[in-house]
Amino acid sequence: MQYHLDGFRPGDPDVAAAAPPWRMKGVLPDNVDVLIAGCGPAGLCLAAQLAKVPQIRTMIVEPKQAPMEKGQADGINVRSMEMFQAFGFAEKVKRESVWINETTFWTPDPDRPESIIRAGRVQDVADGLSEMPHVLINQARVHDLFLDVMRQAPSRLEPDYGIKVVGLMVHHDGRDHPVEVTLESTAPGSAGERSTVNARYVVGCDGARSTVRRAIGGALHGDAAHQAWGVMDVLAVTDFPDLRMKAIIQASHDGTILLLPREGGYLVRLYVELDRLHETERVAERGMTEADIIAKAKRILHPYSFEVKDVVWWSIYEIGHRLTDTFDDVPASRKAEQTPRVLLAGDACHTHSPKAGQGMNVSMGDTFNLGWKLIHVLTGRARPELLHSYTDERWAAAKALVDFDHRWSRVIGTREDAGEDQSIPRVQREFVANGEFTAGLTVRYEQSDLVGNAKWQNLATGYPLGMRFHSAPVIRLADAMPMELGHVVEADNRWRLIMFAPAFDRGQSGGQVDALCRYLEDDPGSPLALYRRPGEDVDALIDVRAVFQQGFRDLEFGEMPSLLRPHKGRFGLCDYEKVFCADHKSGQDIFTMRDISRDRGCVIVVRPDQYVSQVLPLDAREQLATIFEPILYVT
Amino acid sequence: MQYHLDGFRPGDPDVAAAAPPWRMKGVLPDNVDVLIAGCGPAGLCLAAQLAKVPQIRTMIVEPKQAPMEKGQADGINVRSMEMFQAFGFAEKVKRESVWINETTFWTPDPDRPESIIRAGRVQDVADGLSEMPHVLINQARVHDLFLDVMRQAPSRLEPDYGIKVVGLMVHHDGRDHPVEVTLESTAPGSAGERSTVNARYVVGCDGARSTVRRAIGGALHGDAAHQAWGVMDVLAVTDFPDLRMKAIIQASHDGTILLLPREGGYLVRLYVELDRLHETERVAERGMTEADIIAKAKRILHPYSFEVKDVVWWSIYEIGHRLTDTFDDVPASRKAEQTPRVLLAGDACHTHSPKAGQGMNVSMGDTFNLGWKLIHVLTGRARPELLHSYTDERWAAAKALVDFDHRWSRVIGTREDAGEDQSIPRVQREFVANGEFTAGLTVRYEQSDLVGNAKWQNLATGYPLGMRFHSAPVIRLADAMPMELGHVVEADNRWRLIMFAPAFDRGQSGGQVDALCRYLEDDPGSPLALYRRPGEDVDALIDVRAVFQQGFRDLEFGEMPSLLRPHKGRFGLCDYEKVFCADHKSGQDIFTMRDISRDRGCVIVVRPDQYVSQVLPLDAREQLATIFEPILYVT
Ligand SMILES: Cc1cc2nc3c(=O)[nH]c(=O)nc-3n(C[C@H](O)[C@H](O)[C@H](O)COP(=O)(O)OP(=O)(O)OC[C@H]3O[C@@H](n4cnc5c(N)ncnc54)[C@H](O)[C@@H]3O)c2cc1C
Ligand SMILES: Cc1cc2nc3c(=O)[nH]c(=O)nc-3n(C[C@H](O)[C@H](O)[C@H](O)COP(=O)(O)OP(=O)(O)OC[C@H]3O[C@@H](n4cnc5c(N)ncnc54)[C@H](O)[C@@H]3O)c2cc1C
Repeated sequence: MQYHLDGFRPGDPDVAAAAPPWRMKGVLPDNVDVLIAGCGPAGLCLAAQLAKVPQIRTMIVEPKQAPMEKGQADGINVRSMEMFQAFGFAEKVKRESVWINETTFWTPDPDRPESIIRAGRVQDVADGLSEMPHVLINQARVHDLFLDVMRQAPSRLEPDYGIKVVGLMVHHDGRDHPVEVTLESTAPGSAGERSTVNARYVVGCDGARSTVRRAIGGALHGDAAHQAWGVMDVLAVTDFPDLRMKAIIQASHDGTILLLPREGGYLVRLYVELDRLHETERVAERGMTEADIIAKAKRILHPYSFEVKDVVWWSIYEIGHRLTDTFDDVPASRKAEQTPRVLLAGDACHTHSPKAGQGMNVSMGDTFNLGWKLIHVLTGRARPELLHSYTDERWAAAKALVDFDHRWSRVIGTREDAGEDQSIPRVQREFVANGEFTAGLTVRYEQSDLVGNAKWQNLATGYPLGMRFHSAPVIRLADAMPMELGHVVEADNRWRLIMFAPAFDRGQSGGQVDALCRYLEDDPGSPLALYRRPGEDVDALIDVRAVFQQGFRDLEFGEMPSLLRPHKGRFGLCDYEKVFCADHKSGQDIFTMRDISRDRGCVIVVRPDQYVSQVLPLDAREQLATIFEPILYVT
Repeated sequence: MQYHLDGFRPGDPDVAAAAPPWRMKGVLPDNVDVLIAGCGPAGLCLAAQLAKVPQIRTMIVEPKQAPMEKGQADGINVRSMEMFQAFGFAEKVKRESVWINETTFWTPDPDRPESIIRAGRVQDVADGLSEMPHVLINQARVHDLFLDVMRQAPSRLEPDYGIKVVGLMVHHDGRDHPVEVTLESTAPGSAGERSTVNARYVVGCDGARSTVRRAIGGALHGDAAHQAWGVMDVLAVTDFPDLRMKAIIQASHDGTILLLPREGGYLVRLYVELDRLHETERVAERGMTEADIIAKAKRILHPYSFEVKDVVWWSIYEIGHRLTDTFDDVPASRKAEQTPRVLLAGDACHTHSPKAGQGMNVSMGDTFNLGWKLIHVLTGRARPELLHSYTDERWAAAKALVDFDHRWSRVIGTREDAGEDQSIPRVQREFVANGEFTAGLTVRYEQSDLVGNAKWQNLATGYPLGMRFHSAPVIRLADAMPMELGHVVEADNRWRLIMFAPAFDRGQSGGQVDALCRYLEDDPGSPLALYRRPGEDVDALIDVRAVFQQGFRDLEFGEMPSLLRPHKGRFGLCDYEKVFCADHKSGQDIFTMRDISRDRGCVIVVRPDQYVSQVLPLDAREQLATIFEPILYVT
């Protein structure tokens, strides 16, 4: 963490200095820059990003009267943990969550088919996928952590509880705040009272029954599996031995349980297969209760006992896999002349079964993709056309998920096919084959203005274009700090240029790293010169770092190019955290791990949302100079 | 972290349910169980422990009007970090502090003696000493973190600011609250107003000028080095390359600087050798200021520039190494018939130079030793005689420190001796030789009622009796969790019996681990039976764990002895976190690392303050049974 740059500030460094408030507490403003509908993971992840930029006037409304306390989703895949790291609360989650280290598979005992036996087990997250674990924690706690980020940000953003969006209209007449939103109070005392807020942008994070979606004419398309499932969070006593591992349990007649240990060491969640539904039947019509879930769970877990002592939360639902056609208000035919004003994220535009554990993750993934784009546009850095890329990128990710979910729901719900290799349960084979997908690591954005072409991919094959920047251990030169390189990519709306030096480059004058640094620092056509605002620190928008192949004792910080020792802030203090070395001691050399050309090195452009935008040779100045042309305004 | 045992509680699991308050906010009580004088590291570390036990009425007074914001100590050695882990905030400190990874040594350039050159460098903490780093952070932040623990504990303890202890008297007439304490307000408006509080125990954590010490007739003895030093926390611009490493810099004529990088990436602390003082001179008489420190620093750092942009804090002091004769109010002659009622901790009973970075560490070490003892006595578990062990153990630790400090101050302050090996600077040699000491890891409590004799030390030579329990990686069986075994020893006033199983013991019925578990669980003469109160969980006072040599996939949790799968709390839920396996995958096998007998195994008794009390064979029932006899009351 870096702080005290502009002078010592006492207290918790996670709490930023407060900006002057722009609205009176409890009084609705007439105009806002961004109105977010809904305090779920999607809405709060977006609000947490916007809260850090106090010049953006953000409002987030939620019909409930207070923050959520329990229930709904709980799975945090490794990709979301990487994102939490960028927000600064991954360590806190690591501490209080349960880590899923192993997944076990239970099938009918061939000798006594009325009983289940453990048929297989696998390490849950394969080695090397991420430096982060796969964890489970109450969705409410994730909300809390985003709320903390909001509260500690300069804008001290708090949600407006007790308010829902009931309608909106976009005015295409060039006005500043073109989205006229009708709000309605849900608070006791004032329920039903309406008011209007005009927004530059509205983001509908209002869940599967999204009002915002309906207001822009969107609809979820997809099919239902006509299968009822029950989910419950319970405190229970059992002799089932894998209560603290993820377990997929298939009984011979009674169906399937997906069992997930939960945070705190005692709580456990069970997804229990219930009845098949008729073609036209709604799950609510069956009138099933927690007692039905418990009774079914007991039958499936036979011969193990399962005594529920306390039901903390439960729900019965029908699986559906649904997706809207677009995530914004721009008709396909008008993309060339119109940019989005209303956007959708999370369950508002795609829903899936909970069993793949993706709902919360992909919803946060949506708004982590959207946040920096909105901020770029609202702070005047980027053209509004940038916002088209949100639907382009996230719709494809959602589509892949809905398709996967479709398949996976079937795998979980079905018996072994005859004729298959019976030594390993089918679910286990599918589970392993899909590990990278469920970890959230297969998202790959297509080539676009934001993702370059693969011409120089061979310089760093471990950093595929359009995929998330995969962290690896390095040693920071100035203080010999062992750390994860990926952790320099914080949720701060900045781009990174990460140079990897060729073998004999020590940062010395005349070397390739030095040459690129000089170009970036001195050339009026370089991206640093073109997009930097007067008075801004050199790394305010584009943050340049370098990684060398030598060990940290073999290089001198003082000999590094001046761009890698920039002087910043009110006092012109040196930033000592731009230069890294390979970690020779641990044997985890980033150049080997990510297959980076030792001869030629490369420079990797990383987007603010941690995705790889470009891999370029160190001398590709022209490409570097033009990368941002379609996105950013020259200052 | 374990929570939700007695039912789901929403919100931050670090915030415990509040106990009913026992006093009105802002109104001084007549009686308290413990009165702590002073909100320094010693006082707050004690208050944080007591706050978790709401039946103990604790009050902590501080003459200042608000929490500290900057200055004083900043070094957190690895032993203190291990203790922070027990309090639950080590991760937070790791995130916001600066880690000291390397220490460099600068001496006069032999060719140009008016300039300094880097003469050596070493890794700051040797491999394997601890799983924790050596870090630096503002003392004020350490205060904040203890204050958070207090605030989040059931008692919601807050200091009484604006109050100082001005005197006390101990009544030896058998009354319940024998220490009559006179308090005086320092708050604007009421300054000088006095009141009386009667306490069972008073702990003087009131710093080097301790009033409590004087009230019990204690005095600091020791010598002064007649040497003035300046210390300053600054934001500066320099071309000195090791600004982000710990650097010990000796110039040829101008003396020595100890340079320490500080949290946040920009701040730096310098200890600068100033003038020698005359035999009778006090440092204040010289009237030196920050300008003198800066001027001297510039001279020593030549040929490097050093431009101070902002002085955050500074102080000029004289080195002294002082120690009281005893840490409590019991005269040596009356130890047999009298137990302590007033105790001293931290700078109140020992002072040393800041340059070894021990002041804050040893002060917290004092009250981490004292806390559980006071709690044992005040909750009626232990005999008051237990409190004698506080002076016995901590006086010796302080003595070792004062002696070390004496030597080390001389090393830092002096030039190379002629005739010595000149290839490595003398300071560097001494630094390396003393690494374990400065890390806080050489504290070794003598054999006593709390530390057994070394008869079975050979069963686990890596766990020396009387030294801190050295953590090592293990895998938790029930959830395959990779973790540090030492982290099960939390700051919760419990004893641990940690069994290490012999090679072929799988926990099976009839094995040695099983036999010991059965004895502990069933035998009315076992310590678990003797000291457990009716209705308490089996691990409320003595927490039994086991570590096996096999990998976690080779053992079945369901086959473990029932004591290792205890059912607890309101619902009788199973605790799944008692059984561990060696970590074969990482290659860090605790049995090898700590040299534990693979043939015979052993059981290690760990004190609530993380020190090793006993190493015993698995069949040493009689010894186990008698261990607690001199300490605890049979229930
Ligand atoms: C009852 C329920 C149970 C679930 N169970 C599971 C589960 O067991 N496992 C799992 O993985 N996933 C589960 N999910 C799905 C998971 O919670 C979602 O995928 C995830 O929360 C999506 O995040 P989101 O922010 O898009 O939407 P949500 O978390 O649904 O948040 C939407 C928010 O918008 C608010 N809102 C609604 N209407 C308006 C309006 N008009 N104006 C403003 N705000 C509005 C809602 O009150 C809500 O707070 C469940 C969801 C629900 C609703
Ligand atoms: C000015 C100063 C500078 C220091 N600089 C350094 C340094 O640079 N490096 C370093 O390693 N160490 C330094 N130290 C030492 C280090 O801070 C101490 O070793 C450490 O804080 C000891 O902790 P403690 O809790 O025993 O005492 P302290 O931290 O001194 O706390 C004692 C507390 O008791 C309070 N108090 C005083 N009188 C009374 C009373 N009558 N009743 C109730 N409360 C009272 C004080 O206000 C204070 O808050 C410095 C100490 C001081 C005072």
